[in-house]
Amino acid sequence: MRKYIIGMDLGGTNIKTSLFTKDFSVVAEQRTPTMVSLGSEGVLQRMADNIRELLLKAGAAAEEMEVMGMGVPGLLDIEKGISLFSPNFPKWENVPIAGWFKERLGIPVFIDNDVRVNLYGECYFGAGKGKKNVVLLTLGTGLGAGVMIDGHILYGATGSMGEIGHMNMYREGRPCRCKSSGCLGRYVSALGLLRTVKEKIEAKEKTVLTDWVKDPEEITAEMVSRAFDEGDQLAREAMEETGEILGFGLVNVINLYNPECVIIGGGMSAAGERLLSKAREVVDTHALEISRKACTIVTASLGDASGMLGAAKAASIKTENRMVV
Amino acid sequence: MRKYIIGMDLGGTNIKTSLFTKDFSVVAEQRTPTMVSLGSEGVLQRMADNIRELLLKAGAAAEEMEVMGMGVPGLLDIEKGISLFSPNFPKWENVPIAGWFKERLGIPVFIDNDVRVNLYGECYFGAGKGKKNVVLLTLGTGLGAGVMIDGHILYGATGSMGEIGHMNMYREGRPCRCKSSGCLGRYVSALGLLRTVKEKIEAKEKTVLTDWVKDPEEITAEMVSRAFDEGDQLAREAMEETGEILGFGLVNVINLYNPECVIIGGGMSAAGERLLSKAREVVDTHALEISRKACTIVTASLGDASGMLGAAKAASIKTENRMVV
Repeated sequence: MRKYIIGMDLGGTNIKTSLFTKDFSVVAEQRTPTMVSLGSEGVLQRMADNIRELLLKAGAAAEEMEVMGMGVPGLLDIEKGISLFSPNFPKWENVPIAGWFKERLGIPVFIDNDVRVNLYGECYFGAGKGKKNVVLLTLGTGLGAGVMIDGHILYGATGSMGEIGHMNMYREGRPCRCKSSGCLGRYVSALGLLRTVKEKIEAKEKTVLTDWVKDPEEITAEMVSRAFDEGDQLAREAMEETGEILGFGLVNVINLYNPECVIIGGGMSAAGERLLSKAREVVDTHALEISRKACTIVTASLGDASGMLGAAKAASIKTENRMVV
Repeated sequence: MRKYIIGMDLGGTNIKTSLFTKDFSVVAEQRTPTMVSLGSEGVLQRMADNIRELLLKAGAAAEEMEVMGMGVPGLLDIEKGISLFSPNFPKWENVPIAGWFKERLGIPVFIDNDVRVNLYGECYFGAGKGKKNVVLLTLGTGLGAGVMIDGHILYGATGSMGEIGHMNMYREGRPCRCKSSGCLGRYVSALGLLRTVKEKIEAKEKTVLTDWVKDPEEITAEMVSRAFDEGDQLAREAMEETGEILGFGLVNVINLYNPECVIIGGGMSAAGERLLSKAREVVDTHALEISRKACTIVTASLGDASGMLGAAKAASIKTENRMVV
């Protein structure tokens, strides 16, 4: 009997995979270093090894699998199941990732954007559970996002719906690798916060942060939170400025999407209210009253598990939809 | 037999109503001055008169009506069919507009946002026909918008999804009646363009426009287009600046919604390429490449009829959905 769903979260550092029952209880979990330097053939092989070990660990047979879902970073052709390009994956171009596994496992395989699978996770099992209008912002190295409106997780014309990280905030601002400038993600992300910190250090502002490291390049977002807690002026200013830009980004998110819930996830969400209190202040004074009052801003609740869980849920929904078509 | 659908477009100046067959051919059309000064009871009565005259003109009986849809300006409770507030309608508050007509006509009555019914019109019969990812921007006195993604016309938590006119473009910019400032609609709309023109006149820039009117307050958006065509420097600058801000607004629309088609409608869309050429230039240099290449920017194709047609289509879709539930 086909009673299990595989959910994989493909990251630049680790391949994380869970085996789920059909009601999404975890049967087993397997983590394997990705070793991106191996290129597409090598990484695909490691992903296959990861699954083999997962099934071994669970004592499950290949015939018991129903469907597999994967969260994949970078640019995808979701319909065709192809990973077109991924910035942190060398020797990786137009990889027919879904087809490769479909052939080997003999089950339907669906890929989706890594942030969108986290949205599936948080919407169905986490901070957005039971809600129909949810925006997820993942503040990690960069800024990713996914959007559910009226109960539909949205894709758009090319699967790129919800590129909130590229919201233009300043006509001429920090250059972005998308070739535009002044994109929200250049300010509101770990890289953005650290750039703000470095600009202040270069402007000779004093900070405890320079006592903690030899080279300002070694400063991390977590250190900025720590310095903030110690009352460091520079850290407080950097966090406040980042929170303010996040706030204006959220004004646009609330006015343009009308969510009931904005979920802030990703590593930098650990900054919590250090970042969010200023953002909330801006939202309260600038977003449309009706939309703002209907919306709460919360942090993600599933942590690391949401990618695997969401990838599995997305695959299960897509299988059902195909079945009714 | 119930073979007709009524589509009404309630405007501040006119009540426009069409009687449609179930395949949306027009049987008759009726236009009645709204006379907003009469307040809610008076306007509702005029709307009822308008429908009576429409049926008379069509030679149709009340028993032949299946459903009625209405496009209503201002703030709505769409679920309850109540018009909460409408800026150009005095003595008009919490008007149970759908219930009032449902009682009198004995058929289901659905209300929806005036811009959203135009989106239904353009998506099903106009410039967006056959497309599944469409954003409509109506550039009239203000800036309105509606959004369809993945084939769903979207509502959001409070029916306010797609308030693109309140996209924050400048942290501190022109004040908006939403209590924020720097909102897109304060720049990209007839009122916005005319304010830009007046600021230039106050800065002593020369223009043929001041020869055409006694008071700069009399200048219209249409005159600015005419002056543009005559090579007037101020008109060209005002149009270019407005087009540039529209362009950055479109960058965000394209990056955040990933539409295949942005439809520009409303009275000011008559400015056409005078406005759009600069906007396209900004989109080409600042929007995400994949999203931008998948998206065309066109002008609306239905004109005046889209409100009535869209209101009727929206009502017909909502009736079908209720039936299958």
